[in-house]
Amino acid sequence: MTTNTTKLLPIWQDETSGIVKVIDQRKLPHDFVVLELNSVDDIIMAIREMVVRGAPLIGQTAAYGVYIAALACTSNRDFDEDGFTSNCNRIKAARPTAVNLAWAVDRVATRVRGEHNSAAKVAIAQKEAVAIARYEADNCRKIGEHGLTLIAEIARRKSGEPVNILTHCNAGWLACGEYGTATAPIYLAAENGIDVHVWVDETRPLNQGSRLTAWELGRSGVPHTVITDNAGGHLMQHGRVDLVIVGTDRTTYTGDVANKIGTYLKALAAHDNGVPFYVALPSTTFDWTLRDGAREIPIEERDADEVRMVQGLKGGKTLSVMVPPAESPAGNYAFDVTPARLVTGFITERGICKATEADILKLFPEKTSAPS
Amino acid sequence: MTTNTTKLLPIWQDETSGIVKVIDQRKLPHDFVVLELNSVDDIIMAIREMVVRGAPLIGQTAAYGVYIAALACTSNRDFDEDGFTSNCNRIKAARPTAVNLAWAVDRVATRVRGEHNSAAKVAIAQKEAVAIARYEADNCRKIGEHGLTLIAEIARRKSGEPVNILTHCNAGWLACGEYGTATAPIYLAAENGIDVHVWVDETRPLNQGSRLTAWELGRSGVPHTVITDNAGGHLMQHGRVDLVIVGTDRTTYTGDVANKIGTYLKALAAHDNGVPFYVALPSTTFDWTLRDGAREIPIEERDADEVRMVQGLKGGKTLSVMVPPAESPAGNYAFDVTPARLVTGFITERGICKATEADILKLFPEKTSAPS
Repeated sequence: MTTNTTKLLPIWQDETSGIVKVIDQRKLPHDFVVLELNSVDDIIMAIREMVVRGAPLIGQTAAYGVYIAALACTSNRDFDEDGFTSNCNRIKAARPTAVNLAWAVDRVATRVRGEHNSAAKVAIAQKEAVAIARYEADNCRKIGEHGLTLIAEIARRKSGEPVNILTHCNAGWLACGEYGTATAPIYLAAENGIDVHVWVDETRPLNQGSRLTAWELGRSGVPHTVITDNAGGHLMQHGRVDLVIVGTDRTTYTGDVANKIGTYLKALAAHDNGVPFYVALPSTTFDWTLRDGAREIPIEERDADEVRMVQGLKGGKTLSVMVPPAESPAGNYAFDVTPARLVTGFITERGICKATEADILKLFPEKTSAPS
Repeated sequence: MTTNTTKLLPIWQDETSGIVKVIDQRKLPHDFVVLELNSVDDIIMAIREMVVRGAPLIGQTAAYGVYIAALACTSNRDFDEDGFTSNCNRIKAARPTAVNLAWAVDRVATRVRGEHNSAAKVAIAQKEAVAIARYEADNCRKIGEHGLTLIAEIARRKSGEPVNILTHCNAGWLACGEYGTATAPIYLAAENGIDVHVWVDETRPLNQGSRLTAWELGRSGVPHTVITDNAGGHLMQHGRVDLVIVGTDRTTYTGDVANKIGTYLKALAAHDNGVPFYVALPSTTFDWTLRDGAREIPIEERDADEVRMVQGLKGGKTLSVMVPPAESPAGNYAFDVTPARLVTGFITERGICKATEADILKLFPEKTSAPS
């Protein structure tokens, strides 16, 4: 029995069995499937195959992975330290771009290593995994509250006209828990009676926008329209976008933003048309060690079949069709980096700041020891 | 029996039956289907439903449509002038953005009206339709020769490294006949032994890139890689695109370019990364009456299901799957306008020019009477 019936979560631990469960996001929106993650291999598969995705959720899943690793490395009172370290490293290597992955593994593993008793190690790992999920949920709510001020200001200016917000990929609760990051201000605006409408970039190749964000918004009754990734520039040229809010998988402390491939193109269009372009992120998604996003953030290349095949519903069944000729090769670059100069600002759990090193570090002064 | 066996054409008139035939481009690349166009309604359906597409081919199809209209308005020696005019207007209204449509209809209709004998009207209509197809094919070859100089120059600079060219949508022979427009320099470069590689934007929603351009290039043995429409910016940031060449559906005499939705985003990325961005077009695609592309060129909105459904191959059959939730609405904006300031130059049948009114009119001085 799951405990995910009233308010949906993307990951949770079954109260009675203790099993870690996730919504299989590969199957949405047409099939709702819950998967059990019982081993480190299951965790790695879930991250790599994008059963779970989105930087904060990758972090949360990885944290549960460290808990599962701690469990697996425990036999009676012994604890296999080498096996534990090796499993933690395997989890960290599951995907390269999201910084939350390494952050979460290191945070939980450090606490585990601080305990000397194997039972205590397992207990602290579980506690930390839960704490990370709660922390991210809390961050999402705060991001929503700060971002809400931006939407409310536009709503005031438009005096009753709907506020049109464009988003790319899914940085909703499926990616984070709670309200999501990029969607948190949108959900809060809707809850506060502000008339919002969301342009949902479908987000090829895996269509996280049309499959996940549209599903999320639909379930919450938020008005939205699915568009191709090609359409945002045209809409901005014609004054039909008031605000862009996206998430991020890793952002340098200088303000360069790695996010789903295509984000950079929307940032260029927003800049060209004077549309505010905000990135919503918890502090866990900042990389406090990297200065130059385009040169230093590793960009994942994924299987070409994710470009060649498209999944959807046909006759009540979810299946995939091949679009290009069988002989044509395809390239699958999963992320791009939007330079700080194109970003209007960041919406974080501590408030909104400009996309500059100085402004970011003003919000997070404890990070000023970052290398430069 | 068709005459389209050795060198494929997108439209042709059967030598024995006289029937106008087209490749049904909705079915490519997985099914090769030839459709007969026997009436003005067939012509309008073919243009509207995108059995044929691409500005020059829309013009050629419309020209054959006027011939079919002339045939239909002829009974013995009588000619139904009102019916003919009404049919011509119906053809012109089939799609709004491509300027070649009205140009071709007007050109053929004017010649038809200049004849007094109904048999002569039909004969001149057919002759003009053939002449337009030949004229566009001739233009394509010349565009290829002029564009080849750009590619050859890059190949020289890269001394043997492949020249990477990005294109959006399909401006190949399927859109034009002969070598196509945007692809003509590429085919000629390949024929001249220059090592070229084409990044093919899949071009959502209808995937003219992955379905048509990839199929064309594959048939001709030109190395290519299908990418999502989101990926071009990332590739340009990393120096992996040497040149962008696209087609256009209508270009103002001031240099603003209407083309398939998403072209504007690629032009922004090219501009941001110093990548040359060229538009290949015959003079028939210039609109000599419009000054401000973004404000004046009508942008077609098409059926939302073109965004919601994706067509591909599954188990040997071509079928369509629905990607977003059934309840989510979608918007389908078919074109956007790239402002002249983002265009490096135009490749026309008369040579290459900058995207300025002065430079365009220098190549086409007979048009200097255009309204300003």
